[in-house]
Amino acid sequence: MTLVTGPTDMLDLARLVDSRIPGRALPAPFYTSREVHELDVAAVFATSWIFVATEPEIGEAGDYLTLDVGPYSIIVVRDDDEQVRAWHNVCRHRGSRILTEPSGSVGNIVCGYHQWTYGTDGRLLHAGTQAPGFDRSCFGLKPVHVRSVSGLLFVSLAEQPPADFDDVAARITPYLEPHRIRGTKVAAQHDLVEHANWKLVMENNRECYHCEGGHPELTCTFFPSYGYTPEEMPRHLQPAYARYLAAEAELERTCRERGLPYEKIEELSGRASAFRIQREALDGAGESFTRDGRAASRRLLGDLDVARLGRTSMHHQPNSWFHLLSDHVVTFTVLPIAPDRALVRTTWLVHADAVEGVDYDLDTLTEVWDHTNEQDGTLVARAQAGVSSPAYEPGPYAPNESHVDAFCDWYLSRVREYLQP
Amino acid sequence: MTLVTGPTDMLDLARLVDSRIPGRALPAPFYTSREVHELDVAAVFATSWIFVATEPEIGEAGDYLTLDVGPYSIIVVRDDDEQVRAWHNVCRHRGSRILTEPSGSVGNIVCGYHQWTYGTDGRLLHAGTQAPGFDRSCFGLKPVHVRSVSGLLFVSLAEQPPADFDDVAARITPYLEPHRIRGTKVAAQHDLVEHANWKLVMENNRECYHCEGGHPELTCTFFPSYGYTPEEMPRHLQPAYARYLAAEAELERTCRERGLPYEKIEELSGRASAFRIQREALDGAGESFTRDGRAASRRLLGDLDVARLGRTSMHHQPNSWFHLLSDHVVTFTVLPIAPDRALVRTTWLVHADAVEGVDYDLDTLTEVWDHTNEQDGTLVARAQAGVSSPAYEPGPYAPNESHVDAFCDWYLSRVREYLQP
Amino acid sequence: MTLVTGPTDMLDLARLVDSRIPGRALPAPFYTSREVHELDVAAVFATSWIFVATEPEIGEAGDYLTLDVGPYSIIVVRDDDEQVRAWHNVCRHRGSRILTEPSGSVGNIVCGYHQWTYGTDGRLLHAGTQAPGFDRSCFGLKPVHVRSVSGLLFVSLAEQPPADFDDVAARITPYLEPHRIRGTKVAAQHDLVEHANWKLVMENNRECYHCEGGHPELTCTFFPSYGYTPEEMPRHLQPAYARYLAAEAELERTCRERGLPYEKIEELSGRASAFRIQREALDGAGESFTRDGRAASRRLLGDLDVARLGRTSMHHQPNSWFHLLSDHVVTFTVLPIAPDRALVRTTWLVHADAVEGVDYDLDTLTEVWDHTNEQDGTLVARAQAGVSSPAYEPGPYAPNESHVDAFCDWYLSRVREYLQP
Repeated sequence: MTLVTGPTDMLDLARLVDSRIPGRALPAPFYTSREVHELDVAAVFATSWIFVATEPEIGEAGDYLTLDVGPYSIIVVRDDDEQVRAWHNVCRHRGSRILTEPSGSVGNIVCGYHQWTYGTDGRLLHAGTQAPGFDRSCFGLKPVHVRSVSGLLFVSLAEQPPADFDDVAARITPYLEPHRIRGTKVAAQHDLVEHANWKLVMENNRECYHCEGGHPELTCTFFPSYGYTPEEMPRHLQPAYARYLAAEAELERTCRERGLPYEKIEELSGRASAFRIQREALDGAGESFTRDGRAASRRLLGDLDVARLGRTSMHHQPNSWFHLLSDHVVTFTVLPIAPDRALVRTTWLVHADAVEGVDYDLDTLTEVWDHTNEQDGTLVARAQAGVSSPAYEPGPYAPNESHVDAFCDWYLSRVREYLQP
Repeated sequence: MTLVTGPTDMLDLARLVDSRIPGRALPAPFYTSREVHELDVAAVFATSWIFVATEPEIGEAGDYLTLDVGPYSIIVVRDDDEQVRAWHNVCRHRGSRILTEPSGSVGNIVCGYHQWTYGTDGRLLHAGTQAPGFDRSCFGLKPVHVRSVSGLLFVSLAEQPPADFDDVAARITPYLEPHRIRGTKVAAQHDLVEHANWKLVMENNRECYHCEGGHPELTCTFFPSYGYTPEEMPRHLQPAYARYLAAEAELERTCRERGLPYEKIEELSGRASAFRIQREALDGAGESFTRDGRAASRRLLGDLDVARLGRTSMHHQPNSWFHLLSDHVVTFTVLPIAPDRALVRTTWLVHADAVEGVDYDLDTLTEVWDHTNEQDGTLVARAQAGVSSPAYEPGPYAPNESHVDAFCDWYLSRVREYLQP
Repeated sequence: MTLVTGPTDMLDLARLVDSRIPGRALPAPFYTSREVHELDVAAVFATSWIFVATEPEIGEAGDYLTLDVGPYSIIVVRDDDEQVRAWHNVCRHRGSRILTEPSGSVGNIVCGYHQWTYGTDGRLLHAGTQAPGFDRSCFGLKPVHVRSVSGLLFVSLAEQPPADFDDVAARITPYLEPHRIRGTKVAAQHDLVEHANWKLVMENNRECYHCEGGHPELTCTFFPSYGYTPEEMPRHLQPAYARYLAAEAELERTCRERGLPYEKIEELSGRASAFRIQREALDGAGESFTRDGRAASRRLLGDLDVARLGRTSMHHQPNSWFHLLSDHVVTFTVLPIAPDRALVRTTWLVHADAVEGVDYDLDTLTEVWDHTNEQDGTLVARAQAGVSSPAYEPGPYAPNESHVDAFCDWYLSRVREYLQP
């Protein structure tokens, strides 16, 4: 005798993890249960490196942003020495949230409740009148690990963050550096609350099986042959496939001439900091993620001297993906809000000197991903609704869903590691 | 030491069932606890035959409707052979909800996520490129039992639905057939979310103790002597009582002449598919559930040749009631949403050839039950608020609440059966 | 292996109570967990005397008000003998909430569901037709203890309310009587839902460490030296301090001449009915809680012959505070709604004969506390947000937070007493 809806039962979480059939979607409680939601925060988000923001968002000393990672609130701030620091946004006195705006600029970090005052370096500078023996040095802000990889800011809430991220950073840096993210500015940042578990959002992003029909704007610059193996290529797509092969060959040549990396690295499971990066040609003008494939910004990034560089696409688990184009960078971070709700933050970066209305048009820059996000939001909300039925039974992944399968494997291994005694 | 509010405790459900005092209202957790809500879905809604819709709502091949029964989403569809079928609205791939509209018409049933395509007969017809060995025949839509009783559609989510429903169907069919529901059309369908546990909604419907004062429109056609036994009939109601006896005698004569059944059958407990049906005279013109008792539609149903046929009222547990009049049929289905929320769907059916504005006026047709539902919604919301107090102690049912008592007995026996090892 | 967010775990409540470090803020689950919320209702609100209203709110026989104390709904009514009575607002029949308005006037207390009718003395007078043997005398409204202390109405949901409240009543009466609350009327009553645990609301009220900067309107009549010990008084506050000492001396003289008490009584922990009362001088005109310190109402309360009487401030645990001025009284009651939500009801009383627009201006009367409540609501919402982070660690109370510390001690002792076998 068991109740049909698992979520409010005391879940035997370890048993749940073991119940997943390899190659199939995850069982329902992974998407619907509050216990699993809390497990995900503890076992995945609080143990990994999490992409949260970019350096241009806090360009000057004193600039900060705040962000919720599940129940955590963190401050990312550029300190007086222009170093990026991250702190728990919790006063050491009675726990008040300290900074309440999404971003801003401060001299010191002052709690609005009783005016406890911290430096941007986290030290408690002032705390009113305290009892004798009160030692200010014991009450600095609690630190959060933070590091910048070519301008992309990753934090870790873990005491001991995964050590293998050094390797990730070393291997992705050559792909990132040419786009000079530290020399960009934020052209737009859009937040979307999707009505689905964060894993459904990530899984959705790991496959383009759903793209046909689902993403008309995005697929403008995808070769129609995308997603087919050479063997299974339908006859009517042969011309498109030939166009793809030529574009890839040209892209490789362009990169070689400039010393730009383009090889695929794909390590989506089997390690703590799992990732994937690859440069790929785009159809149409081949320059950018726009409807016609032309660059959205006339001002190319860094020292790039050619627009037709395709897209460098990166995933980093648990919660982010990126597209680096010659003219702009777009970053995505997914943050869990509830079992059935996740925030997707999308940030578009252009050259710091690019002028809106002159060098770039904001709508042209953002429309492809705004539409695509909106469409994905609808799809994952349907998935969330569906898996909430007791009749849901995880089905098999197709070959073109191998990244989704790898994501699930990775996720479960992170949870297993957390649960083990 | 126990916390005053039971809902979040681990309820010993069996003990809770035993704690009810016969003849009294149910203890509070039956109305307030999430555990009991989930138990109700599993033990009652997923094991019984549930009235969900009428055949005219899906008149043509390909017509469908979708409905949520607790956490379940189901599709009821007329297949290519014009048979009514029911399916779980969950894709066999990654669990997406397939049909997202309340109703419509389809050729095939296509999931909007990855275009998995099912026939109206549930077979998986197309699923993109799959790994070798993928067997489409293993991934048809999961079936839900469905049957039509004279045009009323009942589903069962159980693997083995209660067998005694055959008997119910056989015994109610003679009452239903003369109204020819398959030859009707939907004149109106109104959904109301009541802020109460579904059982409070049903209990409220099982007695008219609350009608006086509470339902001015409904009681227009109730004899004022309604609810009194002959022995306790007050003197001032004697004239109304005489009118009632005369109307009943006339109704019996009218029915006998036409071979129409009118006897009461009342089996509200002691069986899985519990029900009650009875024809009763109406006051006023005696023809229909309108303020003045006159037929709301000039076009009588089926081959009926007289309007003054009173009302044939049917209950079917757990969640529906019906009134069949000479000129229209009105059906009610109650579906649990949350411990303190239930959907009440009311559907008015008139002759398929009746013309709105000519044969019937929509407001006249719907006003009595629209008002009555609204009034009942207010009453049960008050009941829900009241039983949420720790000071609530179930009180005794009066003699005119015997149906409510029978409903509670039936409900508890269903739960007991589910809980037993 | 434990999940980071405690609330949904089965809390070992006793262990949680023991985990608090003396002199520090409470651990997070006390503010965030649903289990603790329910514990608070059971262990604190259902065992204590709770201030809920004032006599002028139900001035005439039949006048009533209803109020939710956690999941309880209570009726406070003046019965036909003009005695104040309190009842559970739950029908003894099927549990319906009986009175649904916040206040009003009735002859009898009639349930709107099936017209069960109770006298204002709680007796069941009428219940329709019942089975033989039904004994009306067994189904009177369930009583709630209620008592008036000089016009302030306290209720207790306990079977045996704390006996030490007699002592409290005896000791505070001399402070209250001169303000003749029974001879006042309600000038305004404002409800504010604060987004914080009720204890954060109370803790916030127990200290003025946060007042500087946080409460510009309130501190208009606080001496700038407020909160400093004589030893730590800064040089620039010496003139204000001298003004304070002079005002206090004058106040003492004024009180002595009139036989008015002014001594501080402070028993905020170590007893069931914990309280504090004290008369203090106000800065500025020194008469009332207005921006300029002048009386807000020209009609002084009772027989008071002088306006410059400072403020008599009283706290009563768990949930109320009061300020008695020469011209008005303002009461505050805090009621838990959810772990992160509490109602703060503020009531302003002026002399029954005072005429709005002539004797007092409503905005002048209410603005200081309307602003202060609003500001406090913002502060405690920040505190609630902050303590919800797993990074929250209770910090030390400063010397000027001794009342907060005492409140926490008292609260934990109440909970301990409830939890002990």
